[in-house]
Amino acid sequence: MMTKEHIAEELQKIQDYICTQLESADGLATFQEDAWTRAEGGGGRSRVIKNGNVLEKGGVNFSAVHGKTPEKILQALNLPEADFFATGVSIVLHPNNPHVPIIHMNIRYFEMSNGTYWFGGGIDLTPHYVVKEDAVFFHRALENMCKQHHVDFYPKFKTWADDYFYIPHRQETRGIGGIFFDHLHEKSTPLSKTQLWEFIKATGMLFPETYVALMHKNKTKAFSETERTWQKIRRGRYVEFNLVYDKGTKFGLDTNGRTESILMSLPPEANWEYEFKTTPGSKEEETLALLTKGIDWSNGVV
Amino acid sequence: MMTKEHIAEELQKIQDYICTQLESADGLATFQEDAWTRAEGGGGRSRVIKNGNVLEKGGVNFSAVHGKTPEKILQALNLPEADFFATGVSIVLHPNNPHVPIIHMNIRYFEMSNGTYWFGGGIDLTPHYVVKEDAVFFHRALENMCKQHHVDFYPKFKTWADDYFYIPHRQETRGIGGIFFDHLHEKSTPLSKTQLWEFIKATGMLFPETYVALMHKNKTKAFSETERTWQKIRRGRYVEFNLVYDKGTKFGLDTNGRTESILMSLPPEANWEYEFKTTPGSKEEETLALLTKGIDWSNGVV
Repeated sequence: MMTKEHIAEELQKIQDYICTQLESADGLATFQEDAWTRAEGGGGRSRVIKNGNVLEKGGVNFSAVHGKTPEKILQALNLPEADFFATGVSIVLHPNNPHVPIIHMNIRYFEMSNGTYWFGGGIDLTPHYVVKEDAVFFHRALENMCKQHHVDFYPKFKTWADDYFYIPHRQETRGIGGIFFDHLHEKSTPLSKTQLWEFIKATGMLFPETYVALMHKNKTKAFSETERTWQKIRRGRYVEFNLVYDKGTKFGLDTNGRTESILMSLPPEANWEYEFKTTPGSKEEETLALLTKGIDWSNGVV
Repeated sequence: MMTKEHIAEELQKIQDYICTQLESADGLATFQEDAWTRAEGGGGRSRVIKNGNVLEKGGVNFSAVHGKTPEKILQALNLPEADFFATGVSIVLHPNNPHVPIIHMNIRYFEMSNGTYWFGGGIDLTPHYVVKEDAVFFHRALENMCKQHHVDFYPKFKTWADDYFYIPHRQETRGIGGIFFDHLHEKSTPLSKTQLWEFIKATGMLFPETYVALMHKNKTKAFSETERTWQKIRRGRYVEFNLVYDKGTKFGLDTNGRTESILMSLPPEANWEYEFKTTPGSKEEETLALLTKGIDWSNGVV
C-alpha cells in the first residue's frame, strides 16, 4: 500500500542518495544537517553544503509536515476544512564557477484528509552562460526519462516550465527551463497513483545524474572577473524570480515555514547594477538571447 | 490653484534640490539622469549615483504617469473605471561604509478623474549598525517636522512605519523605521489639501538635511571585513523586504512600470548565508535586538 508514510520514507532515501552523489562530485565539502520540527505538526531535515570545490552554496531539503490546511489553499481549491499532509525534497545549488549552471529540483506529494492528493515538482537549469550542447543534453535527458512514463509528459511539462520560470518584469526566463508539473493525480493524467509515483521517483533520481555530469564537464573551466560579475547579476535575477514570483517560496513564507530552509535557495552573493548592459556580440548577450520561452532544446536545432 | 501639474513641477524642484545636496555631501560622484516615457502616458527622470565617496549606489527618481487606472486599484477601492495621474519622488541610497545607514524616502500624489486624490510617502532609516544617538536624532527631526503640521502625525505615522517596514518571516523590522503614511486627504485627516501638500514638501525637504548629517557623521569611520559582511547580510534582508512585501515595488512591477527605476532600490551587492548567527555580545547582536517595533526613539530613552 502506497501510504503517505511510505512516500515520505522513500523521499528521504532519495535525499540521502542525492547528497552522497553531490558530495562525491564536489570532492571537498559535505552536507550539514539541521533536523527541525514544526510547531503545528511534522518537520524536516535541511541539508546545506557550502564552500565546496564546485558548490559555493546549496541545499537539499526534505520535509514532511501536516496539520490544518491553510485557509489560502482551501479557498483556492474551494474545499471545506480538512487536514493536510505534505512531503517533498527541494534542492537549489549555486556553484562557484560561472560556467557551472545553477540547478533547482523539487518533488512533492500533497494529501488531504478528504482523500484529495496530488504530486508536483520539476527540474530546471539556470546556466550563467548558456552552452547549447549542455542545454540539449539536459533537455534530452528529461525527455527520455519522461517518455518512459507517458509520451505527453515532456512536451507538456517543458512548456509548463517555460511559463512558470518566467520573469515578466525582465521579459526573460530564469534559465533554460526543464520540466515543471503540479496537481498530478489519476484524474488529471492517464496514469494511476502508483505510476505517477514511479515518475516522481524517476525525476528525483535523474537529477544527480544530469547535474553531476554538468558539474564535471564545466567545473575546471577558467573564468574571468567579468564572468564572475555576470554570474552575480544572473544570481540577482534568480533572487528576483524566487522572491517575487515563486509559488513555493511564497507558500512557505505565508504559512510560517522554516525561513532558513525556504530561503536556502538564495545565492551566497548577488549583485544589482542599474541599467546593466551586455556588450554587443558578447557571450553575455548571446546568453540573454537564449533566455526565452519556446526553444525546442531536445530537438537539438537552435 | 494647486493643480496636478503644479505638484509635479514642485516635486521636480525637490528632486533637483536633493540631488544637489547629496552630490555636495558625497564629494565625488554625480547623478546620471535617464529621462523615460511610458507608452500608456507620462514618464519620468531617473537619477542614479554610483561609486561615490559615500554612496555606493543610489537613486533619486521622479515620475509623473497617467492613463487608465489599473484594474487592481479600482477593485481595491471599489471604484468604476477612471483615469489616474500619479507623481512622486522616490529615493533609496546604499552607502559604501557599513556605519552609514541605508535610507529610503518617498513622497507621492495620486489623483483620479472622478476627483479622488491622496498623498502618501514617508522616510525610514536602515542602519547596518544601530547607533542609538543617530536613531534618536533621526526620529526627533521627523517628530519636530511633523509637529509643525499636526500633533497627531508623528505618533500615527511612526507606528505606521513600524508596521509597514516589518519582515514577518524574519520577525524583525527592516531598520529603525521613521514615518509612513498613505491615502492622506482632507477627509482622512484634519488638514486641507493645501496644508497636506505643505506637509509633503516638508517631508521631502527634511530628507537631505537629516541624511547629509548622518553621512558626514559616519562616513570616515573605519570598518572591518566582518562589518562589511554584516552590511551585505543586512542588504539581503532589504532585498527580501522590497521584493516580498513592499507595495510600491509590487505595484510598479504589476503595472508594467520601468523595471530599472523600480529596482534601483536593490543594493549593489547582497549576501545570503544559511543560518547566519551573530556572536553573543557583539554589535551585530545588539543591532538585531533593536530591529523591533515600538521603540520610542524620539523620547531618547532606549
